[in-house]
Amino acid sequence: MLVIMRDHATTAEVDHIVELLHEAGAEAHLSRGEVKSIIGVIGDREIIYSLELEGLPGVERVVRVLKPYKLVSRDFQPEDTVVTVGSATIGAGAVAVIAGPCSIESEEQITTTATAVRGAGATMLRGGAYKPRTSPYAFQGMGVEGLKLLRAAGDSAGLPIVTEVLDVRDAETVAEYADVLQVGARNMQNFMMLDELGRISKPILLKRGLSATIEELLSAAEYILKGGNRDVIVCERGIRTFETYTRNTLDIGAIAALKTLTHLPVIADPSHATGRRDLVVPLSRASLAAGADGLMVEVHPDPERAKCDGPQSLTPEGFAELMECITPQLAIDGRHLGWS
Amino acid sequence: MLVIMRDHATTAEVDHIVELLHEAGAEAHLSRGEVKSIIGVIGDREIIYSLELEGLPGVERVVRVLKPYKLVSRDFQPEDTVVTVGSATIGAGAVAVIAGPCSIESEEQITTTATAVRGAGATMLRGGAYKPRTSPYAFQGMGVEGLKLLRAAGDSAGLPIVTEVLDVRDAETVAEYADVLQVGARNMQNFMMLDELGRISKPILLKRGLSATIEELLSAAEYILKGGNRDVIVCERGIRTFETYTRNTLDIGAIAALKTLTHLPVIADPSHATGRRDLVVPLSRASLAAGADGLMVEVHPDPERAKCDGPQSLTPEGFAELMECITPQLAIDGRHLGWS
Amino acid sequence: MLVIMRDHATTAEVDHIVELLHEAGAEAHLSRGEVKSIIGVIGDREIIYSLELEGLPGVERVVRVLKPYKLVSRDFQPEDTVVTVGSATIGAGAVAVIAGPCSIESEEQITTTATAVRGAGATMLRGGAYKPRTSPYAFQGMGVEGLKLLRAAGDSAGLPIVTEVLDVRDAETVAEYADVLQVGARNMQNFMMLDELGRISKPILLKRGLSATIEELLSAAEYILKGGNRDVIVCERGIRTFETYTRNTLDIGAIAALKTLTHLPVIADPSHATGRRDLVVPLSRASLAAGADGLMVEVHPDPERAKCDGPQSLTPEGFAELMECITPQLAIDGRHLGWS
Amino acid sequence: MLVIMRDHATTAEVDHIVELLHEAGAEAHLSRGEVKSIIGVIGDREIIYSLELEGLPGVERVVRVLKPYKLVSRDFQPEDTVVTVGSATIGAGAVAVIAGPCSIESEEQITTTATAVRGAGATMLRGGAYKPRTSPYAFQGMGVEGLKLLRAAGDSAGLPIVTEVLDVRDAETVAEYADVLQVGARNMQNFMMLDELGRISKPILLKRGLSATIEELLSAAEYILKGGNRDVIVCERGIRTFETYTRNTLDIGAIAALKTLTHLPVIADPSHATGRRDLVVPLSRASLAAGADGLMVEVHPDPERAKCDGPQSLTPEGFAELMECITPQLAIDGRHLGWS
Repeated sequence: MLVIMRDHATTAEVDHIVELLHEAGAEAHLSRGEVKSIIGVIGDREIIYSLELEGLPGVERVVRVLKPYKLVSRDFQPEDTVVTVGSATIGAGAVAVIAGPCSIESEEQITTTATAVRGAGATMLRGGAYKPRTSPYAFQGMGVEGLKLLRAAGDSAGLPIVTEVLDVRDAETVAEYADVLQVGARNMQNFMMLDELGRISKPILLKRGLSATIEELLSAAEYILKGGNRDVIVCERGIRTFETYTRNTLDIGAIAALKTLTHLPVIADPSHATGRRDLVVPLSRASLAAGADGLMVEVHPDPERAKCDGPQSLTPEGFAELMECITPQLAIDGRHLGWS
Repeated sequence: MLVIMRDHATTAEVDHIVELLHEAGAEAHLSRGEVKSIIGVIGDREIIYSLELEGLPGVERVVRVLKPYKLVSRDFQPEDTVVTVGSATIGAGAVAVIAGPCSIESEEQITTTATAVRGAGATMLRGGAYKPRTSPYAFQGMGVEGLKLLRAAGDSAGLPIVTEVLDVRDAETVAEYADVLQVGARNMQNFMMLDELGRISKPILLKRGLSATIEELLSAAEYILKGGNRDVIVCERGIRTFETYTRNTLDIGAIAALKTLTHLPVIADPSHATGRRDLVVPLSRASLAAGADGLMVEVHPDPERAKCDGPQSLTPEGFAELMECITPQLAIDGRHLGWS
Repeated sequence: MLVIMRDHATTAEVDHIVELLHEAGAEAHLSRGEVKSIIGVIGDREIIYSLELEGLPGVERVVRVLKPYKLVSRDFQPEDTVVTVGSATIGAGAVAVIAGPCSIESEEQITTTATAVRGAGATMLRGGAYKPRTSPYAFQGMGVEGLKLLRAAGDSAGLPIVTEVLDVRDAETVAEYADVLQVGARNMQNFMMLDELGRISKPILLKRGLSATIEELLSAAEYILKGGNRDVIVCERGIRTFETYTRNTLDIGAIAALKTLTHLPVIADPSHATGRRDLVVPLSRASLAAGADGLMVEVHPDPERAKCDGPQSLTPEGFAELMECITPQLAIDGRHLGWS
Repeated sequence: MLVIMRDHATTAEVDHIVELLHEAGAEAHLSRGEVKSIIGVIGDREIIYSLELEGLPGVERVVRVLKPYKLVSRDFQPEDTVVTVGSATIGAGAVAVIAGPCSIESEEQITTTATAVRGAGATMLRGGAYKPRTSPYAFQGMGVEGLKLLRAAGDSAGLPIVTEVLDVRDAETVAEYADVLQVGARNMQNFMMLDELGRISKPILLKRGLSATIEELLSAAEYILKGGNRDVIVCERGIRTFETYTRNTLDIGAIAALKTLTHLPVIADPSHATGRRDLVVPLSRASLAAGADGLMVEVHPDPERAKCDGPQSLTPEGFAELMECITPQLAIDGRHLGWS
């Protein structure tokens, strides 16, 4: 950490900061210039992140040099983490394609979808049993009944299943049924849930919050790893910007940046990001071209009658076309669909 | 709801949409122009909000005319809601000033603060027992022990207390100690928590999410009212924008807009919004001038040693100056501090 | 400037940066830690702002300590700049109210408006002769004819006039007629225009760009002062965010921040910021409460038939009510309308 | 256009709107519901875009159905526009790679770069002679001298040249030297410049503004086409969001969306968007995968000593690697570099 003092800060002001630093257990290295003094601070991450010196007399700015995360960083672990989920793997060249409906609506709907996406090459099946909805008047999901249908559909199609934990109190129940537990964008900074999932022995798929920075996303993942669970997949799903043509703005630069910053697998969700079916294929391809380790795509056998996210859901045929598109693209990078 | 068809959409496309609407139980009124057809849709809020016709063949755009909320709107209840909390009231000209430290750190700290802010005119005491922290390496709060200290400090100073529920599993425990339960920005769309708080008989202070629209904030409040709890205070606390000089951008226009859209009391939190002590007074004044029914302000007896949010905390002296500033301002509007 | 090297950057990498700095004419002060090395850089603003070391081998981050502007800063000139324009002054307690239509449409329209706003207490008259319009199919203004009508209306009402320079080639012509030359939000970083206006001896009203940071706004003002023109008024007029209920988000925190960072007068334009008539009064009051030195407000005798910005224009009656609202508010701060 | 009236708007309010519409020369079609009335408006684009009914008594919302642009839309011209510039073409499967330094610094620098990028497969040469710089203390470009050096370097390498017009007064001069005239992000809504360029018979490369919506970008292009110049290339170069890890957020979804909305060629500038050399290759690949018709990439023979944008400039070797990466990618789509 660097504390940059205002021009001509007084000796008393500088000394006071140094004193506070010592009091907190940190080392202070002072460079006193004619106009500006700068204090270099060395200490444990816990101490550094508990110090808030902005706004003190004479302080102009505080620059944190130490990242707020450690276990998730490539500096800590240079080689890619590979997450294995039953028949599927992701990371280090193995690409996951997670497909399925926004919400589980009936046995027939989820079974049909599972068979179709399996046939086209998906490596995992997704489906929501508990749905976060902006309006209290919208469909909220089938609950445990949905989990059972999803489990059965996954088993019969031979696909591991991914589903969202919406309420921390349901985490154990969801973990009984699901192979991968998803944390939705709205819960990315539900720290209690992150703590809980750090103690569960199933992989976690962590979605980036609508207005979360890359650093905050990695700090959220750090909570889970710090709890003991190292199988975390992070997912870029669009950020909120001024542009309204697409529902959100898929931050593909963040995918490329995350690949340099963390060893964890990184996937993209172009369905939620755009909210528009016609953009799912180009943005799936773009995400993989930027280095994504996988995709999460909404597929529904009858999007017109979907209870949620119909406008962005591919039909099974549309999904098959997507898979045909991406196969040669993966090949030129020497990557492959993640079947273990 | 209006479904605007693309130019020269075919009769079959238009008919298909009309059919889907009827199937869902809604009425469809078709205006067929030479170039453009538009379908007006009438039906229950539940049906309208379950229909997602964007992206269907021939559909250009869907315009929702019905708001996603009802109980919180001024159309539903034109007169201001007044929330009474022990000695304090808020709404309809009664202004709340909620002051206290970001987090409860010790008995002395919270008692000193309580006495000081009470002396200066605060109407409620705030303090965090469970702290949401971006980094898992930062201070996370004192938990139940903190709740007890806050309760005691509030009682001794004669101030109702406000504190955050961070984990839905703690809601009942927090409700045992606190007078007002706060939902933090990161939990604004934690729908399970909103449901739970709808069943609790204590007022709720609901903070706007960092990237939540005004409509989403009101929809979140709607969850609580729909559950049966009508005592909700909404709080503007800054939104995330490209500007980094202030930590967030206090959306004072949203305060003025909310006063026209909802009957619920609206307050502002200039401390979290700016992250800078020197901006707390001007933005407190601006918020009240825009029509806010109250303020939530961080005060710490020794900000330099605060375990959290020191840079934005006022000293007791700074808080007293703020109170002196706002008193004449309230007077010119015929408003008063909310002592019941 | 500080160059923060990556953990365990090699000696060769560090030496290379030092060498580049010396080559550029800057001084380099190296602090070599066990893990991290940091290089402090001292030199002229021109040199510092020409150095771009981000991305070089071993470099983690570059922190600029020196602000990109100088003449506009309070460090350079602690006392408020007061701008005098004929009968009006602004700054150091003198508050400007600049009122008038979005665009000049006819002699009657501008004369009626001028008389009305003068009667209610406005200190300057505004009106657009050249209009920037998003769509090429919208009304583009009356041009020189409009300037003449504005001049006449201002003279007859006894009000100095403010109007926008849309094209750098028109700067001199506009300067012949107008008392204050406005730079619109879309031209805030039209550096050629800023250069030109730096050489003109009329005050400049510089609007913040839709997505300009506070630092960029001050850097734009610096261009004008560097050119020799010290009479600059900066104007917050709303920034673009994800919120769409208001047209833009009036960043009232920026007003308060600007008052600490610069000696230049700072005004607010709540009309353009919100695009909604019903929010103009609350946001005018809020802006003044945050410390603004003035307001720019759209007034039209017949907003329903205005050729531009009708929805946000006050009627003369609405404007008179606004003036009645703000008068007692200025009084409690010991401020006054800026009549010289 | 649809005018949606408030619930229970009075007959007088509705009639008044209808009257205003007739007065303006538009047709009004009224659907009066029990609760809500909606008025459909039909008329010329000029009339529709001059009507601003928001905020009138009884009006809840106005929905514009007609787009603010026409000539640039795919509805108007379904087939791709192909722009030919000397030896290079772009559009309809022909991909442009425009490479070169941020600014022209010397004969040797631009000649070396031209030869290198030509050798690696670039189809056009770029270089800035006039540089927009946030700080008045930064390098501002070589001016006409730079144009001459760029022209000579392009001629000798056999590459058409692209350069920015920063000042409308220089448009003709730049047009004498350059093959393609670039409008920078800060000038996207410099409507006077757009008008001027509409009358020039050279292709225009129009960059998206930092906070411009897709609709505003297309409206800006419409200005140029409306003036008579149909050879416009639009360029996504990153938008401003809350994320600061990358300089801007490259909106790759906008590229895919633009390909559906307009017939004009669409390119991406990953260098400016990210400001980071290590992200240029992944985002170049992603942009092409999303359907971009080309790339604009900064290349400098000695990025460490570049006078501008060094951190994001590729070396000639880095550029050659990029070209090797994208060649097989274009092949799988049946596309090719645009040599005519």
